[in-house]
Parts: sequence; structure tokens; C-alpha cells
Amino acid sequence: MNYPILARYLGQFLLFFSLCLLPGAAWSLLHLEWRPLVSFFASMAVGGALGGGLWFLGRRADGRMYNREALALVGVGWLVAAGLGGLPFWIGGMFSNPVDAYFESMSGFTTTGASVLVDIEAASKGLVFWRSFTHWLGGMGIIVLFISILPYLGAGGKQLYKNESPGPDPRGLAPRIRDTASILWKIYGAMTVVLTVVLMLEGMSIHDALCHSFGTVATGGFSTRNASVAAYSSVGIELTLIVFMVLAGTNFSLFFAVWGRDWKALLRDPEFRAYILVLSLATAAITADLWFEGAVDGLASALRGSGFSVVSVMTTTGFGTADFDRWPDFSRAVLLLLMFIGGCAGSTGGGLKVIRLLILWKVAWERLHKAWSPRAVRTIKIGNDVISPELQHTVLVFFLLFLIAATLGTLAMAALGLDLITAFSAVAATLNNIGPGLGVVGPTGNYAELPTLGKAVLSLLMAIGRIELFAILVLFSPGFWRKN
Amino acid sequence: MNYPILARYLGQFLLFFSLCLLPGAAWSLLHLEWRPLVSFFASMAVGGALGGGLWFLGRRADGRMYNREALALVGVGWLVAAGLGGLPFWIGGMFSNPVDAYFESMSGFTTTGASVLVDIEAASKGLVFWRSFTHWLGGMGIIVLFISILPYLGAGGKQLYKNESPGPDPRGLAPRIRDTASILWKIYGAMTVVLTVVLMLEGMSIHDALCHSFGTVATGGFSTRNASVAAYSSVGIELTLIVFMVLAGTNFSLFFAVWGRDWKALLRDPEFRAYILVLSLATAAITADLWFEGAVDGLASALRGSGFSVVSVMTTTGFGTADFDRWPDFSRAVLLLLMFIGGCAGSTGGGLKVIRLLILWKVAWERLHKAWSPRAVRTIKIGNDVISPELQHTVLVFFLLFLIAATLGTLAMAALGLDLITAFSAVAATLNNIGPGLGVVGPTGNYAELPTLGKAVLSLLMAIGRIELFAILVLFSPGFWRKN
Repeated sequence: MNYPILARYLGQFLLFFSLCLLPGAAWSLLHLEWRPLVSFFASMAVGGALGGGLWFLGRRADGRMYNREALALVGVGWLVAAGLGGLPFWIGGMFSNPVDAYFESMSGFTTTGASVLVDIEAASKGLVFWRSFTHWLGGMGIIVLFISILPYLGAGGKQLYKNESPGPDPRGLAPRIRDTASILWKIYGAMTVVLTVVLMLEGMSIHDALCHSFGTVATGGFSTRNASVAAYSSVGIELTLIVFMVLAGTNFSLFFAVWGRDWKALLRDPEFRAYILVLSLATAAITADLWFEGAVDGLASALRGSGFSVVSVMTTTGFGTADFDRWPDFSRAVLLLLMFIGGCAGSTGGGLKVIRLLILWKVAWERLHKAWSPRAVRTIKIGNDVISPELQHTVLVFFLLFLIAATLGTLAMAALGLDLITAFSAVAATLNNIGPGLGVVGPTGNYAELPTLGKAVLSLLMAIGRIELFAILVLFSPGFWRKN
Repeated sequence: MNYPILARYLGQFLLFFSLCLLPGAAWSLLHLEWRPLVSFFASMAVGGALGGGLWFLGRRADGRMYNREALALVGVGWLVAAGLGGLPFWIGGMFSNPVDAYFESMSGFTTTGASVLVDIEAASKGLVFWRSFTHWLGGMGIIVLFISILPYLGAGGKQLYKNESPGPDPRGLAPRIRDTASILWKIYGAMTVVLTVVLMLEGMSIHDALCHSFGTVATGGFSTRNASVAAYSSVGIELTLIVFMVLAGTNFSLFFAVWGRDWKALLRDPEFRAYILVLSLATAAITADLWFEGAVDGLASALRGSGFSVVSVMTTTGFGTADFDRWPDFSRAVLLLLMFIGGCAGSTGGGLKVIRLLILWKVAWERLHKAWSPRAVRTIKIGNDVISPELQHTVLVFFLLFLIAATLGTLAMAALGLDLITAFSAVAATLNNIGPGLGVVGPTGNYAELPTLGKAVLSLLMAIGRIELFAILVLFSPGFWRKN
């Protein structure tokens, strides 16, 4: 590990990051909220001092960044940024327990949307705005990280996004990282603006519209209302959010293609087709279950409830219109499964990602076929792309690591005294960056009641899931920190 | 598929299998139970007619057996044998629902031990003896199948047991299948006799001792008492069973080595060491949990309860001395995890097997290491054996298929109206061939209350888990049945 170089880039990142707190300060000023306003400037001062200090320590760094430094920068950067982003919540008086502030901030930046804030409507508008804005920053960060930075570092999802990508080839996006990032930001920004305007036309205030828009395009899920989206009781708003959640869970490279007038790129993409298929099947299954079991009044109400919840959970957004923890067990089991599937690669959605599951499904099928005709050689293809044995291995091991994280997380939460359903679903909902789980942490529940250590563990799981394991997991390996 | 050859061998197998019902008939005669006695002869007649008919149909078969026919023989043979073995339960009046009889028989042959029999003590001695004897036959069948037949067919666990085996090389066992099988049967038989004698010395009747002995060496778990092993309230019996359960969950190739005077083979084997380590850690963790949570009276009682349950669950036996469904959630979570680990390869135990998890653990660790030093080439070794990329792939895909089976099974059980804990643990306890799960199917509960369709699904899962997926799963692939 080249520590000086890590310090320099981490310092630069924190200096830049501190500036991102400004919109929160502006919104506090607009609403004449003085304590939150002060908290933002205090946090910026801390960030500035920390960033400046690190930058100073690393000012004479030489050598270039290798994988190790880049991974450490992403991992440590994410953990520290969540801390800095949580400072206003603590200083501003939203939480007295600093771990609560860290949890809420991590949940924001990882676009999870799990909350320990019990009464959102009573909180400061500036802090609530910042809470949703962390979603927006996190979502943008993830897209840039996965589409335009990580592929070139060889970290984490490398093969999924680079030359062996079974989806649209991101190298075709634009020749240089800066150009790609800039176009993706424009698409992301345009989606945010359009959604905000539509939500305002449907009756939301600008504060609510902006916050829900941030929470949607980032597949985050923080709301401005205690009852989440259910508070509006509006079919129009729910339909609008369904459309934009589905878009936010789509590979942004596809929008890039559509932007370049290739309108059929969406329909051709195997991952997008599987994504829509799973959303439709799950909605149909849960609608049928709710209807047969008489859990809701009539078919229309079943469809409305299941459609919104399925999209909200599978895109890993986590907005709520219904308390799906009270639904029949089959519906709850389907939702738990959807949590692990998640959105498409290269989207703001979390989870294992549809493309990985598509690959796993084909690998499993090929193995069964091979059991009875061992000499048959079949290549595994997704669309026109051959899935190489190396990529199969990477995806299989990713799946394995994800399940190890989920298993250890569940054991830890059970050891802290949570019942098994709450423990497992809390881990599923944070590792996959959804938000609400089942049981105590269900749609009408809250993470506030969990023990402090449990909140810390879940914060870590959110980070692990969000940056696809490696950049966080390697931080726990002593060999990783060895000096060069 | 060469149907004539399949018919001939299946016919021969069923003719042989019908003879295995004789001990049940003898035990009924000894206790002067006439209806059970008639039921055994009726079942033998059915088996004889079916076997003879199939043999007649296939008498002019030519060509040799390929993988496809061998897999079909194992898969279909197992499903049909369970049916034939369940006939005495149905005809003999133990169950009025034939699916119950099939479930109980499948649970016996797969050495699962999940039961739909509510009052064992009121049932016929002959039928209860046969119920435990199915364990013994199934356990012997599995050892022969996995150590001396399947490796030469290239099916299922091939690489785990043949030339790429990380454990003792079964090719070294003995030059020919018949010799290997004969020595393994002697070891298995000797264990049964010794255990029976010890249990009788500790106060059991010969009926109870024999049945518990069958249930132990096969890691089955059927008891002759409604309260299972708890009925004896004897530390001696519990300790004896712990020792023999641990032995039954050990790779029988190791006993082969010990038989050949290589006394240290056990201590050298990485899988055996990991197996003992996990058993010890889990016992310690659950003892601590029970003690701290005050779930039992005192440390000794906590140790006694946790030691027996951990060994019983991890070896996939399923005898009960405590109602672990009432234990704190952490203990229940650990037990659920142990269910999926299971015994050692080449033992009578079920589950994923310790060696596979050892390989998965090393694969995961190697991948993390690779994230920060992509050019480092590290070979994965277990003991002195290099785990080839092909074997890694096989184990990873096996893990994937196992989880797909568990997930689809849980969804199916939830769709039938079971609560999530019962649904998942029932699937875990049957797929891994343990027996008792949590919730409704917990140690003091029973599978009798489940809907008939659920019992059918679980019967299938027992078979899938027992013969390591492939031989059953391929039966559902239409291409598998195509005529040559």
C-alpha cells in the first residue's frame, strides 16, 4: 500500500465532497433553519480540515495508483464520506446517537433508504433535504464508479462492465472516462428534473417533489412523509414513480444508446428483457396471492399494491404504499427473493443484479445438461455474447461471497437478539440496498429500535453491498494494508 | 435413452430390493403381528411382479449402459424403491393416506428422519422396525453409491470422490468395486453391531437398540419413542449416540485406512479436522448463548443440550433430546446453518458436505486476495491436494443448484400456506436429510400437519438432496428421455 498516494487522493476527494454539503446549507437558509445551517458549515469545516490535512500529508506522494490504492480509495472514501455526510444530522440535532446519524447517512449514500428517523415530518426541512440529496449523490457516484471508473481499474464487477460485458459494451459509450461520465450525469440530471416537474404537477410541493425525485432516480427510497408514498393516496403519483423506478433500475448504458438514436437498444438487451419479465411475473404472482387469500379488497387494489411494492423492492428503492409485512407468506417470500435479484448492472439499483442471475441460471442449466451427456460442449451465451469460463467463475464467486456476507450478517443480528425473520430481512434489505424489510424493520416499522451495534453492522453491510463487496471486504484483510 | 437396458436393470434391482423386506416380515412374525406380516408379503409380491415384468420387458436389451441410463437407474430406482418400501406402511395400516406412507419411506431411505407418524409407540413393532431398517438400507446404499459406483460413472459428485478427490483417493481403497463395497459393508455392519450391544448394555430393549442403531449409523434419526432420545433421560445413551453420530458423519474411506492400520489417517484429513472444528465451535457458541440467555438451568445442562443437538443436526441425524425451536434465535440460526453444512463426503450424512464448504471458503478467500493483487497466481490447496479450476467450478455450481432447490422449495411451501420459518426450515431439514426443522416441524412438532402436496414436494427434496441433485434433477429435463 502506497500510503502517501492514498492520503493525497482521499484528501482531494474529501475537499470536493465537503462542497457537496452546500445545497443542504442553502435549503436550510431558505427555510430559515439556523441550527441545521450551522451544522452544515461545521461539517464542511471538519471535511475541509480532514481533507486538507490528508492532502498535505500526501503532497509529496510519488508513484502511480495501482489496484490496491484505488480499491482502498473507494472503500475508505465511501466509509469516511458517510461519516462526514452524517455529521449534519448529529450536529443539527436530528439524532443524539452518532451511530444513528452514521446509519442514516450510509443508508442515504448507498441509496438504501433504511431509516432510523421516526418522525420525518417533524424534522428540519434542510436536514430532510440533505438526507434525500445523499441518495442523489450516491446514485450518481455509483453510476460513474461502475460504468466509467471501476472497469478500468479491474476491480469488483470488472468483467461485467468491461470487455466481457454481456450487455452493451461501455467502451462503446465514449472514448474517454470524462466524456462518458459527463453524458451519464446529463441523463441522470434530466431524469431528476423531469420527475420533479411531473410530481409537482401531480400536487407535490417543490420540497417533496425534489426529495422523492432524488429518492427515485437513485433507487434510494427516503421519503419526506412518515407514511412514505402511501401518504399521498394518489394513483397518478404511484404510476409515475413506478415508471421512474423501473427506469432507474435499468442499465444506464442503454439510455446512452437511446440518446444516440438507437431506439431499439432496450428491447434487444437480454438483461432488460429478463428484468421486465421478472417484474411482471412477480407482480402477477403476488396479485394472485393477495386476491385469493383475500388480503386486500378486490383485484384492482391487489394489483395496485403488488405492482408498486414489487417494483419498489426489486429496483431496490424501498418506497412504501402498503405494509407488505402483513401480506401472506408466499408474497413475503417472493419479495425477499426479489431483494436479492435487484436491478440491472450499471443502474443505480442494488442487489445481485439481473445479469448475474441470468448468467447463474444458464450455468446451472448447462451443468444439468452436462450430467447426462458429459462430452457435449455447450458454450453459454447471453444474447450474442459468449460468457467465458472466467466470467462464469467471477459471477459464481460473487454469488458465494454475497451469501457469505448475508449469512454472517444474519448470525450477527440474531446474536444481538433479533428474531430470525427480522434478522434475515434486515440483512437482505441493507446488503441489497432496499430499505424496508420484514418484521420489526417492515414497511411500517423502523430501524430505530435495533441495538446500536446492529446499526453499525447493517451500515457496513450497506457499504459492502453497494460497492459490490470487494472494495469493502479487502479492507478487513491485513495483507491488504502491508506497506510496499 | 436405451429403455430396454434401463428396464432390465431396474427390474433386477426391484427383485433384489423386494427381498430386503424380509427382515420386516420376520420382525412382525416374532411379535405375532398378522396384518403387518401380510403387508410385507403383499409388498414383496408387488415388487416381485413389477421387477419381474420390467426384467421381462428388457430381457433382449443390448448395448451397454452409458451415463444417461445409469443416472436414470439411480434416480428412478430411488423414487420407485421409496414407493415399494412405503407399501407396508400403507397396507399395514400405519397410514391411510398413501402420500404419508411414501413420505415416511422416502424419509427412511434418504436417512432423513422427518416423520408424519404421530404416535410411534402405538404402532406395530414390525412396521417400526422396518421404518428404521429403511435408514440402514439407505445409508448402506449411499456409501456404496458414492464411494464405489458413482465415481466410475462420472455422475454427480464424480470429482469429489474420484481422481480429483481432495480426501483419500478411493481408487486406492481396493482395486475393484465389489471388494470395496464388501469391506465398507463390513465396517458399516460392525458399527451397527457394536452400537446395538452398547445401547442394550445401557438399558435399551433389543428392539429399541437395533432401531436406534440403524438410525445412528445411517445418520437417519427415526426413533422408537415419541419423545425421541429424550425419552431415555440417560447421559450414557446420549454420549454413546454422540460418538457414533460423529463417526457416521465421517468419510468411510478413513475407516478403511484405519482398518489398514493407518491410525493417523483421521488426524491428517483436512475435512475431518474441519468437521470436528465446526462441531466444537458450534457447540461452544450455542452453549454460551443458552447459558447467557438463561434458556436452560446451568452450564452443564446447556452443554449437554447443545452438544447433542449440534452433533445430531450437523451429522444430519436428527435425534432429539431438546426442543431447540424454543432456544434463542442465535442458536436457531446456527442450527439452520449447520443443516446446510452437513457431514463429510463419503459418509452417510447429508447436506452440502464439509469438504465442499472448505473448498468454497478457500475459493472465496483467494478471490478477495486477487482483488488487490490481480497478477498473483495462487493455487488452492486442501491438504496436499490442488483443487483444480474444474473442481472449483463443479463445487460452485453444486452450491448454486442446491440453493436454487432450497429457494424454489421454500417458495412452494410458502405458497401452500406455511409460515416462512416453517417453510424454510422444513426445506432445509429435508433437502439436507436432517429430519426436524423449526416452527411447526420443530423437534416436538411433526410433518403430519402439512398439506399432502407439501409432503410430496418435501419427499422429492429428500431424494434430490440425498443423491446429490443430478440423478433426480435430470429426470425433469425432457431431453434426458429422448430415445437414442
